[in-house]
Amino acid sequence: MRLGRKTDFFLNGQSESASYHYYFRKAIRMSLTLRSGFSFGGALSMLFPADKIKNEQSFLENTDEYWMSKALVKSMENASIANPNPSVGCLIVKNNELISSGCTEIWGGRHAESIAFSRLSPADLSGSTVYVTLEPCTHVGKQPPCIELFKNKGIQKVVIASKDPNPLVAGQGLIKLKEMGIECVTGVLINEVQAWLAPFFVQQKHKRPFIALKWAQTLDGCLADDNNGWQWISGENSRKYTHWLRQKYDAILIGVGTLLNDFPSLDIREIQHPNKRNPLKMIYDPFGKIFQCDKIEQEKLKEKTFKEGTKKIIFINSSVLAIEKSKKNEWLQSIIQNKDFLIVPLGEQNQPQFTKSLLESFLGKEIEDFLGRPLQSVLVEGGGRLLSAFIEEKCFDLIHIFIAPFFLGGEKHKLFSSAQKGFLSYPLKEVSTVQRYIMKVQEKLGEDILIELVQNEMN
Amino acid sequence: MRLGRKTDFFLNGQSESASYHYYFRKAIRMSLTLRSGFSFGGALSMLFPADKIKNEQSFLENTDEYWMSKALVKSMENASIANPNPSVGCLIVKNNELISSGCTEIWGGRHAESIAFSRLSPADLSGSTVYVTLEPCTHVGKQPPCIELFKNKGIQKVVIASKDPNPLVAGQGLIKLKEMGIECVTGVLINEVQAWLAPFFVQQKHKRPFIALKWAQTLDGCLADDNNGWQWISGENSRKYTHWLRQKYDAILIGVGTLLNDFPSLDIREIQHPNKRNPLKMIYDPFGKIFQCDKIEQEKLKEKTFKEGTKKIIFINSSVLAIEKSKKNEWLQSIIQNKDFLIVPLGEQNQPQFTKSLLESFLGKEIEDFLGRPLQSVLVEGGGRLLSAFIEEKCFDLIHIFIAPFFLGGEKHKLFSSAQKGFLSYPLKEVSTVQRYIMKVQEKLGEDILIELVQNEMN
Ligand SMILES: NC(=O)c1ccc[n+]([C@@H]2O[C@H](COP(=O)([O-])OP(=O)(O)OC[C@H]3O[C@@H](n4cnc5c(N)ncnc54)[C@H](OP(=O)(O)O)[C@@H]3O)[C@@H](O)[C@H]2O)c1
Ligand SMILES: NC(=O)c1ccc[n+]([C@@H]2O[C@H](COP(=O)([O-])OP(=O)(O)OC[C@H]3O[C@@H](n4cnc5c(N)ncnc54)[C@H](OP(=O)(O)O)[C@@H]3O)[C@@H](O)[C@H]2O)c1
Repeated sequence: MRLGRKTDFFLNGQSESASYHYYFRKAIRMSLTLRSGFSFGGALSMLFPADKIKNEQSFLENTDEYWMSKALVKSMENASIANPNPSVGCLIVKNNELISSGCTEIWGGRHAESIAFSRLSPADLSGSTVYVTLEPCTHVGKQPPCIELFKNKGIQKVVIASKDPNPLVAGQGLIKLKEMGIECVTGVLINEVQAWLAPFFVQQKHKRPFIALKWAQTLDGCLADDNNGWQWISGENSRKYTHWLRQKYDAILIGVGTLLNDFPSLDIREIQHPNKRNPLKMIYDPFGKIFQCDKIEQEKLKEKTFKEGTKKIIFINSSVLAIEKSKKNEWLQSIIQNKDFLIVPLGEQNQPQFTKSLLESFLGKEIEDFLGRPLQSVLVEGGGRLLSAFIEEKCFDLIHIFIAPFFLGGEKHKLFSSAQKGFLSYPLKEVSTVQRYIMKVQEKLGEDILIELVQNEMN
Repeated sequence: MRLGRKTDFFLNGQSESASYHYYFRKAIRMSLTLRSGFSFGGALSMLFPADKIKNEQSFLENTDEYWMSKALVKSMENASIANPNPSVGCLIVKNNELISSGCTEIWGGRHAESIAFSRLSPADLSGSTVYVTLEPCTHVGKQPPCIELFKNKGIQKVVIASKDPNPLVAGQGLIKLKEMGIECVTGVLINEVQAWLAPFFVQQKHKRPFIALKWAQTLDGCLADDNNGWQWISGENSRKYTHWLRQKYDAILIGVGTLLNDFPSLDIREIQHPNKRNPLKMIYDPFGKIFQCDKIEQEKLKEKTFKEGTKKIIFINSSVLAIEKSKKNEWLQSIIQNKDFLIVPLGEQNQPQFTKSLLESFLGKEIEDFLGRPLQSVLVEGGGRLLSAFIEEKCFDLIHIFIAPFFLGGEKHKLFSSAQKGFLSYPLKEVSTVQRYIMKVQEKLGEDILIELVQNEMN
């Protein structure tokens, strides 16, 4: 399977620059806010003890919502390793008792339904209700179509959260189930499940990776204090959620400013829940500052961000890379020779198309081959300058913001701040014309608040 | 009844400046966050149709919480006119049916219990349960003690949200009820009721008015755009809540910067609910900029902020006032002669005691006489410079913030912004040492989010 190629955009009969804008006008579509206790990270009850979530929606026992919420939790077990397959959950319930369950395995492995059914005899299945977060598939992929499993088993009812996003197959599973005489219910917890599967939906529909931005800020919008002191802005629960998101998304992108100030490890700690892999780490470093590091910084990087065992990509302007290579920079050579690293040369980036060549490289075969599968999602984790560029160019599907309840009053680490050295200036925004976003989630996480925003309701 | 006098502070054996700090270390005490659907403005169901509140807590019918939530709604009927009495709600329930209810009348009028009981015969009351948001009073004030009403009526149970804040009388009502052989339950919805009655609690306990700050901001902390264009930041529901808060609090305070940029009317519109009076309007104008207004600005003020029918106070440095008076400024003269106006001269204000003389004037007899009752609460509505000063000096009990889901990237209207002309600089804050606040409420209001913060959990 391959994601969309450049040609997918450029075949739209639009000019290259128009196609770029076209690209991100197609954001995820969701018409409603999510129920309390759910977010784009899934069911918060999987991540936090019940007392940490203020208003978790409690469903009446044995209702369809009740079982579907448990199917969603089940589907979270293989966050990330199922990618680019959707991580689906399936529960089988009989006489108000859970008799089997399954979650999509690692890419190429079995689907959720297949695992759940495999544990049961036809006698078990007779009279049961199947809860599945995504419509069962009808096509032959790496696995036989799941729909076949439902044949002649005496299954009473199938409850589905969401149809398949692919318009060519959406509804086919349902039609087949009805032909088998099985009662079907759809749309149960549809928003919550679609939020969880958003990267899969965007990739299927728009042939590009899902782009999520994430940061922690104070109430007055500071991402750090003016001393650049490295300290947590957000509290323990927000950090746990961040680690969970790193599990969910395929790759993390940070700017070189953050790399060389924080030396972040960018791996997954602080979650007790299934931790199956660390994400790909990507550094945006147009001017090759990494390669100017002194020995001490190099050592710090090797210990932290560049620690062995994870894959790393460095994005650098192609002209800068050429110069660095000609210098016979030893540090650069050692990185080039390290098979855990990929250096991706970019065309020069100019406003307002700063993100363009970066995004196009996400679609290239080089990254797919390096990762071993298509890049389905990217979490941009900062700093403020990189995030400002993504926001200004409307280049995102989703923003996760943690707001911590205090004020810093600083100037340097606010989004769009002109107090930042070397920052390219953005046009003045006015209240009457500025783009407004839509808040899909707001949830208290410990002392902070988590807000999740999308650009628009369009599809 | 009178609020604390200066002597109340200065009798603490502390120096004047220490007593000032002491003053605001005593903030409201609340150990828990409020349930969804409740805020410091009361039960949001009273203000918004159910579909506008995302997660309103639904109580099981006929539980104590269910009836107490209705008693709290009842208590909101006389927001503001009951002040400085607490606006209490009382419901009488028999056989799971509401048979009578009452809300504290205008100051000097009847208490909630007295109204609720007056409609019923002893036969009605026999076997009933009484829900009352505050412990019934045991002392003779402008009204006979409510506790007498409960005698020999065959009342089965009394459910009370909160005890009286006055430590000398707290629990007396309960003791008397128990002596009468009535079953008592306390603490039902205690946080939600204490939040609603917070101004009364602070005034009773700390002998000073309750200070609430309020503003609307973007996610990146802008209170306006850099063009000073006057446009709503927040949406319709947030504005409705603001109007409701103006109803609840005794006075609104704004800085002269806001006055002369926005010419706000500061009255109460946009609420369908009981609107009983407009609040006192207070302008902080240390350098007497109001008196430099040209004719056009004077007309605008007369039409809007200074419109007839409401009381207005102007705070001005005493030295500036003396100079203005000596100039025989006609506009100043017309204001002095207008009985709707009070001009309060202040001692010179220096950082870090900017708010000191302002606060002391709130306690003076002059304002109490002008208002016709003690000043129990003040809502500081902006602009950013005035708010920054109140925050920096820790001079508040509560902050209401509406966050609208967009970014402006401006510099001038951020809190503590040094980009503001004439702004006094505040010391640089650092993440590791900065004061953090406690979020008691976070609630989606239309497209925005409402956050309510307190300083600490101390009492
Ligand atoms: N609170 C949070 O969630 C959070 C998250 C991450 C980081 N941080 C903090 O943020 C700080 C570092 O962030 P930062 O903003 O300085 O750097 P950054 O965003 O991490 O890095 C930006 C990099 O992109 C380059 N760039 C080139 N053109 C650009 C354009 N048009 N727009 C944006 N960037 C462009 C910059 O180059 P030039 O340097 O040549 O301009 C720079 O190398 C640290 O203090 C860190 O602690 C906070
Ligand atoms: N989003 C919202 O909720 C909201 C609410 C209200 C207003 N606003 C916007 O805010 C803008 C006006 O606000 P503003 O900040 O310019 O003015 P402001 O806060 O309304 O007024 C501040 C006044 O206090 C005086 N002052 C003297 N010493 C001070 C000190 N130590 N700290 C603070 N103030 C001191 C200032 O004097 P000097 O002028 O001599 O310095 C000025 O006259 C308008 O654009 C308005 O639309 C937004």
